[in-house]
Amino acid sequence: MNDTKVRILAAGAELFRRNGYTGTGLKQIASTARAPFGSIYHFFPGGKQELGDAVIRSSGESYADLVFSIVDGHPDIIEAIEVAFTMAADSLVATDYADACPIATIALEVASTNEVLRVATADVFTDWIERGTRNFQTKGLHEAEARQLTLTLITSLEGAFVLARAMRSTEPLLAAGRAVRTAARSMLEW
Amino acid sequence: MNDTKVRILAAGAELFRRNGYTGTGLKQIASTARAPFGSIYHFFPGGKQELGDAVIRSSGESYADLVFSIVDGHPDIIEAIEVAFTMAADSLVATDYADACPIATIALEVASTNEVLRVATADVFTDWIERGTRNFQTKGLHEAEARQLTLTLITSLEGAFVLARAMRSTEPLLAAGRAVRTAARSMLEW
Repeated sequence: MNDTKVRILAAGAELFRRNGYTGTGLKQIASTARAPFGSIYHFFPGGKQELGDAVIRSSGESYADLVFSIVDGHPDIIEAIEVAFTMAADSLVATDYADACPIATIALEVASTNEVLRVATADVFTDWIERGTRNFQTKGLHEAEARQLTLTLITSLEGAFVLARAMRSTEPLLAAGRAVRTAARSMLEW
Repeated sequence: MNDTKVRILAAGAELFRRNGYTGTGLKQIASTARAPFGSIYHFFPGGKQELGDAVIRSSGESYADLVFSIVDGHPDIIEAIEVAFTMAADSLVATDYADACPIATIALEVASTNEVLRVATADVFTDWIERGTRNFQTKGLHEAEARQLTLTLITSLEGAFVLARAMRSTEPLLAAGRAVRTAARSMLEW
C-alpha cells in the first residue's frame, strides 16, 4: 500500500479512537499524517465517510491480529484471558487512558446516525466473534460455548474500556477479567 | 425545576445518547425541546459544556433510579440480573437500537478531550458502582464481592450495548447476561 495512504489510515485510526469520528477533522488527519490535504481525497474520493469506513475495517483487523497473536501464544484458556486483560490495562495506563478499542467510540457515534459506518463496525465485531469462536474451539470448547465465551470476553473488554477511560482506573478492567475467567472456568468444569 | 429547563435537559439527553456530544448542536437541542435558542444560555450560561455536564449527571442519575427500582423488586440476585438484561434488550429493540446507556457515547468521546465532562461521566459511574455495591450487600454479599459483581454487571452491560447497537442484535446482551449470572452464581456458592 502507498506510504502516504498508510500514514493517513494510521492518523485517522489514532484520532478517531481518541477523539471520536465527529470530533476529528480531515485537516487534523492530514496534519497528523504529514500528508497534503488533497491526498486524502486522492486515496479516499468519498471523503471522510470513505476514510472512516477504511479506518474502521483496517484498525479492527489490526487490533484482532494483535490480540490473537497474544492469545495464540497461550494454549490455556484461563491464562490467555488473563494475559489479554492485563495487556489491555497496561496499554491503557501507558497511553494515559487514551488507547483502548480502536472502533468503540465510532461504533457508538454512528450506530443511529450513519448506516455505512455502522455496517463497517458491525462487520468488524462479527469478524472478531467468528475468529474468537474458532480460537476457543481449537482450545477444546464446543462451538456454542466458544461463541458464548467470545461474546463474554469482547463485551466485558469493551464495557471495561468505557469505565476505565472515564474513571482513569484499571479497576474495571481487572474486575472484568476476573469475571470472564470465572465464566471460562465454569465452562471448562462441565 | 423550570419546565423549559426540564425539556432542554431531556432533549439534550436524548440527542447526546443517540448522536453523541460532538454530533449534537445547541440549535438541534433547542428545536427538539421546543425552546427558544436563547433559553439554553439562560439556563446554562456556560453553553454546551455546562449543558453537557448537567445532562450527564441528571440522565446518569435517572437511569440508575430506573434500573435500581427494577432490581429492588427482585430480592433474588440471579433473577434481578436476568431482568436487568432482558429489560435492556427489550428497550433497545423498542427504540430501533437507539437507546442504551445514556452516557456511554459521551464518555468515550470526552475521555481524552474534555476534562470537565470526563469527570462528570466518572462521577456517574462511581455513583453507579457505589449504589450497586450497597444493593448487592443488602442481598447478602460481602462488600468486596458486591463491588466485583457490580463492576461485572456494569462493564458487561456497557460492552454489550456497544456490540448490540452496532450489530442490531440482542445476542451480545443475552450472552453478557448469562455470563454475569454465572459470575453471581459462583459467588453465591462460596
